[in-house]
Amino acid sequence: MSQILNLLRDRGVDAVTDPDILAAHSRDQTPLAEAGRPLALVRASSTAEVSTVLRSAHEAGTPVVTQGARTSLCGGATATDGCLLLNLSRMNRILSLDPVNRLAVCEPGVVNADISRAAEPHGLRYAPDPGSWQESTIGGNIATAAGGMCCVKYGVTAEYVRALEVALADGRVMRCGTETVKGVAGYDLVRLFTGSEGTLGVITQATVRLSPVPAQRLTLAAVFPSIAAAGDAVAAIMSSGLQPSLMELIDQVHLRAIEDMRPSGLPTDAAALLLIGADSDPDAELARAEELCAAAGASEVYRATDAAEADALLESRRMALPAIERKGGILVDDIAVPRSRLAEALAGVEEVAARHDVVIGVVAHAGDGNLHPNIVVGDDRIERGRAAFDEILDLALSLGGTVTGEHGVGVLKREWMEREVDEANLDVQKAIKKALDPKGILNPGKVLA
Amino acid sequence: MSQILNLLRDRGVDAVTDPDILAAHSRDQTPLAEAGRPLALVRASSTAEVSTVLRSAHEAGTPVVTQGARTSLCGGATATDGCLLLNLSRMNRILSLDPVNRLAVCEPGVVNADISRAAEPHGLRYAPDPGSWQESTIGGNIATAAGGMCCVKYGVTAEYVRALEVALADGRVMRCGTETVKGVAGYDLVRLFTGSEGTLGVITQATVRLSPVPAQRLTLAAVFPSIAAAGDAVAAIMSSGLQPSLMELIDQVHLRAIEDMRPSGLPTDAAALLLIGADSDPDAELARAEELCAAAGASEVYRATDAAEADALLESRRMALPAIERKGGILVDDIAVPRSRLAEALAGVEEVAARHDVVIGVVAHAGDGNLHPNIVVGDDRIERGRAAFDEILDLALSLGGTVTGEHGVGVLKREWMEREVDEANLDVQKAIKKALDPKGILNPGKVLA
Ligand SMILES: Cc1cc2nc3c(=O)[nH]c(=O)nc-3n(C[C@H](O)[C@H](O)[C@H](O)COP(=O)(O)OP(=O)(O)OC[C@H]3O[C@@H](n4cnc5c(N)ncnc54)[C@H](O)[C@@H]3O)c2cc1C
Ligand SMILES: Cc1cc2nc3c(=O)[nH]c(=O)nc-3n(C[C@H](O)[C@H](O)[C@H](O)COP(=O)(O)OP(=O)(O)OC[C@H]3O[C@@H](n4cnc5c(N)ncnc54)[C@H](O)[C@@H]3O)c2cc1C
Repeated sequence: MSQILNLLRDRGVDAVTDPDILAAHSRDQTPLAEAGRPLALVRASSTAEVSTVLRSAHEAGTPVVTQGARTSLCGGATATDGCLLLNLSRMNRILSLDPVNRLAVCEPGVVNADISRAAEPHGLRYAPDPGSWQESTIGGNIATAAGGMCCVKYGVTAEYVRALEVALADGRVMRCGTETVKGVAGYDLVRLFTGSEGTLGVITQATVRLSPVPAQRLTLAAVFPSIAAAGDAVAAIMSSGLQPSLMELIDQVHLRAIEDMRPSGLPTDAAALLLIGADSDPDAELARAEELCAAAGASEVYRATDAAEADALLESRRMALPAIERKGGILVDDIAVPRSRLAEALAGVEEVAARHDVVIGVVAHAGDGNLHPNIVVGDDRIERGRAAFDEILDLALSLGGTVTGEHGVGVLKREWMEREVDEANLDVQKAIKKALDPKGILNPGKVLA
Repeated sequence: MSQILNLLRDRGVDAVTDPDILAAHSRDQTPLAEAGRPLALVRASSTAEVSTVLRSAHEAGTPVVTQGARTSLCGGATATDGCLLLNLSRMNRILSLDPVNRLAVCEPGVVNADISRAAEPHGLRYAPDPGSWQESTIGGNIATAAGGMCCVKYGVTAEYVRALEVALADGRVMRCGTETVKGVAGYDLVRLFTGSEGTLGVITQATVRLSPVPAQRLTLAAVFPSIAAAGDAVAAIMSSGLQPSLMELIDQVHLRAIEDMRPSGLPTDAAALLLIGADSDPDAELARAEELCAAAGASEVYRATDAAEADALLESRRMALPAIERKGGILVDDIAVPRSRLAEALAGVEEVAARHDVVIGVVAHAGDGNLHPNIVVGDDRIERGRAAFDEILDLALSLGGTVTGEHGVGVLKREWMEREVDEANLDVQKAIKKALDPKGILNPGKVLA
């Protein structure tokens, strides 16, 4: 038996080695990503246990792949050969909820939506809402610096993390951040761990910021005859001074896929549907958005007449990914461009699709310039799909954008991250990795090669 | 002549060694802070020159103290013996202003207020507004992660930095961050450099986020017969769901000092004045705030009747520090506590003042729980003042707060930062410092001992 398993057994940590269970836990939701063969799975139940696992792995030099709900779309939570899978989804208690200071202290395995559910009686919510919010964990959200729909107005995960407890590569446990609104004592370690994808430490507890549930929310849907017109509408709205609470684009490929999966009367003949939310002075805001959509060429604009109808629209948007996955194998891309270049990015993706003769559906957190071109590759177009995937990343960089707006680097985009940043930046990242994880046991091969 | 001066001369960098000029540049605005004797001053005019200076200093092992406008209140920009002062205030061009993507690209020496001035024709502003905004530089603001008055609603400097160009300890220049709203490619180096107080790299360019100038702003002033009542009002307002655009407390000591300096009819008999701003639906917001102030025991509440009157009130607040400095030597403290504990912190400061028989005036970014207890020590109470200073920091920690809400660690609070964070956290900070500045030439003795 391997050294690490002995160490864990001696230290009272239960490590599962059943091959079926291991196989079931070796992948995340990244389509077409390779997974290695893990040595064992630990379902940790406390910070102390996480600490023991890391200390042991550090001694034995065993790679550790931390997992939340495994909804990663960049292979961040996939197993590497001989690794220990450290799954935190059982550490799912909300430890405290402070409505006065608007803070929630959570174990890392708490599911995103559960925080808002717990805060609701106080008129509060946890704002960041990745599409996976009913499944993904706060630890995973923080480790990936996740985005979502409301981010166009309310910002991304990183802006909601106040303090963290982190188990370091050698098993030592530290805290960073404060419970105060402001604090500048020392380097911003909270933000360094946020988005570090399990490569610098394991988040064992998080103090996150809650915010008021908006009193009213309204949603508008605008139907466009061309992707370009939808892009123009986004640009017009975002530069008008309006602050929509969501601004999502769904293209025809996705409209049809969603409608196939769950018919709800979506306009499947439209080139694109734009969903626009407002929650400050929603009537006035949406009236203005409506004008701007019409001016950009919308063929139809309608408002959800009640909350249920609005929620149904958002539900449709959230089903975009599962719906298109039913069309066969897909590759999920995730680029962000400066807002002003959204229309160019959309046109560029259409060109890439034509050039490689693949179907590419696009959904976008359009107000943020964050696009998900989903490339339908089935079983027989994987090569072409990969070429298209790469060209889309090239396109993003050529437009002054980034190769990942929110999903992360994981295994999928290491080389691309290296192209995005300059050499000195990469060296700084490597130096930090080396300083915090000298043996390279934390999620090796993710983010950095 | 020393090695560094030879290197700089050979490389065409102009280094000033005139003792008077050096003396004039060896301090920042931190009262009663010691300053060392610098070797030379370089007023850099380009990134290339900064890079050359660092490369040379790295070769020679010479400490480099980077300076913006030297308004630091924690000794962050003070000279150390034998250091090179690297002043960036001449690098003061706004390189581009993009109203569509709402970004400004600035050299590090651009003065904070100049960004808003340049953005105003587009209806935009650079929101973070430290009291020093007419003087302090964007490089200094970012290096200290500065706060300000509007932060209670709009957030601190760190939330406005999109991308940076940084010259590293060895002179290599790197970029980090993106021009996009979202981006998660690699570790969050932007936030690591933000607040690093010149100890990890020199910021040579910054891309900052602009935001719309609010259409209307109103300001209310509430007069309180006791500090405790003012604290209660803050708590009531901040937990009511209102989002004031500023929420500043000025105590009697400061009211009198300001009135002495520039008479404007401030209520010098009041225990505290609370300034509350609103800019969303300001009439309704302030009506509600007015009720809450009255309920908490305000003896008088009045609204600024026009923008000029409102600005005059804010001007008074901004004069708090210079006004109290006229009372003789002072020590400027800067603590933050969870919002719910503001009243306890205010009471605690009163106790400390009584115990040590020193006058302590308090101004506070009250909505954020960020207090500046300014301790009047004159020439003869420095010992007592220092004891009070330390007890206030202890008080902050005992209330779950931080030893610095916005001014930074600098030289003043190194030991206190070490008390605030745990050992593993400190080790991580040191490991990062070592990884990025192996020779320890960047602002040595600041932040970390
Ligand atoms: C249908 C669907 C919709 C999605 N929509 C969005 C979206 O709108 N926005 C978005 O940003 N993402 C989205 N995602 C991607 C994914 O949900 C997010 O990346 C999410 O944050 C992952 O959380 P998780 O708990 O599943 O983490 P995992 O997938 O288990 O892990 C993700 C990464 O974080 C690391 N990690 C997990 N927990 C910890 C921890 N406690 N400490 C340290 N490292 C840890 C892992 O090692 C891995 O690198 C979506 C995914 C799906 C399937
Ligand atoms: C009257 C007054 C009011 C103030 N009000 C506030 C307030 O409301 N909120 C607040 O947060 N602070 C406030 N301050 C403190 C101070 O103004 C801020 O810390 C400010 O950000 C410093 O900017 P500066 O350009 O003066 O930097 P400096 O004082 O020159 O430097 C500050 C620190 O940053 C480093 N530094 C400067 N430029 C760079 C660079 N380009 N790259 C790397 N490191 C650099 C220095 O080495 C030093 O450690 C106030 C100060 C005064 C005098």
